[in-house]
Amino acid sequence: MFILINLKAYPCDPLKIANVARDVADESGVRIAVSPQTADITRVADTGIETWAQHVSPTDHGSHTGSTLAEAVADAGATGTLINHSERRLRLADIDKAVNAASRAELDTCVCANNPAQIGAATALSPDSVAVEPPALIGGDVSVATADPDIVSDAVESAAAIDTTVNVYCGAGVSSGDDVAAAGDLGASGILLASGVAKADDPRAALDDLVEPL
Amino acid sequence: MFILINLKAYPCDPLKIANVARDVADESGVRIAVSPQTADITRVADTGIETWAQHVSPTDHGSHTGSTLAEAVADAGATGTLINHSERRLRLADIDKAVNAASRAELDTCVCANNPAQIGAATALSPDSVAVEPPALIGGDVSVATADPDIVSDAVESAAAIDTTVNVYCGAGVSSGDDVAAAGDLGASGILLASGVAKADDPRAALDDLVEPL
Amino acid sequence: MFILINLKAYPCDPLKIANVARDVADESGVRIAVSPQTADITRVADTGIETWAQHVSPTDHGSHTGSTLAEAVADAGATGTLINHSERRLRLADIDKAVNAASRAELDTCVCANNPAQIGAATALSPDSVAVEPPALIGGDVSVATADPDIVSDAVESAAAIDTTVNVYCGAGVSSGDDVAAAGDLGASGILLASGVAKADDPRAALDDLVEPL
Amino acid sequence: MFILINLKAYPCDPLKIANVARDVADESGVRIAVSPQTADITRVADTGIETWAQHVSPTDHGSHTGSTLAEAVADAGATGTLINHSERRLRLADIDKAVNAASRAELDTCVCANNPAQIGAATALSPDSVAVEPPALIGGDVSVATADPDIVSDAVESAAAIDTTVNVYCGAGVSSGDDVAAAGDLGASGILLASGVAKADDPRAALDDLVEPL
Repeated sequence: MFILINLKAYPCDPLKIANVARDVADESGVRIAVSPQTADITRVADTGIETWAQHVSPTDHGSHTGSTLAEAVADAGATGTLINHSERRLRLADIDKAVNAASRAELDTCVCANNPAQIGAATALSPDSVAVEPPALIGGDVSVATADPDIVSDAVESAAAIDTTVNVYCGAGVSSGDDVAAAGDLGASGILLASGVAKADDPRAALDDLVEPL
Repeated sequence: MFILINLKAYPCDPLKIANVARDVADESGVRIAVSPQTADITRVADTGIETWAQHVSPTDHGSHTGSTLAEAVADAGATGTLINHSERRLRLADIDKAVNAASRAELDTCVCANNPAQIGAATALSPDSVAVEPPALIGGDVSVATADPDIVSDAVESAAAIDTTVNVYCGAGVSSGDDVAAAGDLGASGILLASGVAKADDPRAALDDLVEPL
Repeated sequence: MFILINLKAYPCDPLKIANVARDVADESGVRIAVSPQTADITRVADTGIETWAQHVSPTDHGSHTGSTLAEAVADAGATGTLINHSERRLRLADIDKAVNAASRAELDTCVCANNPAQIGAATALSPDSVAVEPPALIGGDVSVATADPDIVSDAVESAAAIDTTVNVYCGAGVSSGDDVAAAGDLGASGILLASGVAKADDPRAALDDLVEPL
Repeated sequence: MFILINLKAYPCDPLKIANVARDVADESGVRIAVSPQTADITRVADTGIETWAQHVSPTDHGSHTGSTLAEAVADAGATGTLINHSERRLRLADIDKAVNAASRAELDTCVCANNPAQIGAATALSPDSVAVEPPALIGGDVSVATADPDIVSDAVESAAAIDTTVNVYCGAGVSSGDDVAAAGDLGASGILLASGVAKADDPRAALDDLVEPL
């Protein structure tokens, strides 16, 4: 089970979260990554935690002012990237290009999508993983296992029908160890979470709880 | 074989093309549709030709100023719509919503995409058809059968691996009857073309040539 | 005082509103226009009411599938257009191009914006009019005269400092004759409204009330 | 005269350019800044050169995955930012928000625009500076002083009519010391350039030539 902590543009201290995440990963043996803002990638990666970009542009080197080149985030220390997060939706053709750009820079790729149909579409573009983010659960306190367990198992089925080598993550509705276990039971091999750790009063306790069942 | 004539924003007379297309469709028995600008749908549909929108918005009724509601183009006389044309790319989530909006309004749907991987993704969203538009061929004079036949047969294969009920059209590189025949041989069950008819000195002769092998 | 009724993508009958608006305009002598969806422009314009598009694309004739060409909406009967409505925001360069495209097609232009600073920016692009739409008031029941009168007078001042020939309209917070009078007192020479008429049980009564103080 | 070197997404070594720029700035006394990709801001700022972001998002702290927060680039060492570069066009409302976000983070702001009308609009949003980028000159070898000198002097006039405290930069068509001098004669108080230094075989020689007339 893979745990990705998305720091979004939260007013948190990325280094504090990164150090905690590295310690918990080391002690538990669970694979944990932190996804900070682009400007913070170097500092976060320097802590030793697995570091992901939140987005890469669907472009190659060239005249692309304001873009986030896959090569640049890889040089800064990222080894993976989210693509098409619900807060950074891309055109279909640009998801395809961003996956290719990230692969070219040897980044691990996770394409986010809303529902099982879109998860199928994302899988057809051959990323390393996809994450299903039910819009109703994003940013809320409701557990995916309670509110809408079928969306995860349906996403797993939808992806498997197209390409069984693509991992399926649960991208919303997870904030406790019980939720992690439930997501795993539904077929997810990873989870994305954000405020549950990034905004926790005690990020260490939050992470310890998350990895407890693993 | 289905022939869709996209009038884009060309300075052509949409009624002239519509009347010619209706005559050729009636005489040849070939299914032909014309896709005018939204403001022209009513007048084109009144000629009796099958009429498609060039785009519908990924929205339902509501506060969406400047949108193109599926219900509105259906009321105006359209019976189908392009979605995600290379000149009107949409976000993945919006293609999904636009397909659903169009289906709700009982419009036939054709989702365009660049390459076989994206065709697979588009197919996973369950439109009625998909159209592969190799970027290098759009708007040019090169025949898809000469330049890049594999992209059509690969797209047909990519779609069939996901959903055999979704038709695959050839969205670029067709301007003659020979091209139509070649596209059919490669597995396409329809073609999209634009300037080849809309900008022809003699649209009737252009259409007669296109349907000749059918 | 100019009254523009924006039908958005509401599930209303555009012809019913258009006929009522024409009758009230004829009887009161007040300038009233109706802005339907693009697909409905022809039918609405045929009633004799002044008809506006909700949006035009920043393009000329050409390969622009899915665009809304200024010339096409003018041919369909529109004589004006909104640009950059809060539900259809455009890039600065595209507002500039859309204003030029609309002027080329001899459409009256109204560029919408959120606040006095943006109203200044919109005015610098030389449209015929600008409309200030305080985000907090859009779609609500609160009167601009009660909630935030300064935003209208500040917008009037901001526009006048740049180009005194550009009219300033009040784009939100108006639903009654009293609101119309208040907007006029604040310096607005027109108002935009939507649900107040389009969703009214009795559009005729709603319009009669709006023109009463004029 | 201010010189801003935009590294875009070029395959250059940002540290090499940064060190050269710092040396030339120190020796000549000319104000020079380098604008690298977001992921490179920390490393570039650490050289001691004035460092600018290429873009900031029109957002505050919060759930904005994949955004480039003004505070984050400021923390990384940037002291200014481009906004609305021709390769990263923003909606009018978002330019307004990005200028405010950057000001909140105490970043110097330069809003780019195509022509004198848009320069007026950009100036109305009260950034610290605006840069006129004639589309025909972007990325080319033609000098603005030869090809289209009026666009610079018209932009200077357009900005001055609205706010005399906003500086006007010349954003294209400058690659030599003679061009810098010409831009200054036309009223520009700064220049933006990119490939002329970033892709130069000898960036030091290119910069020495640029500052020579100053």
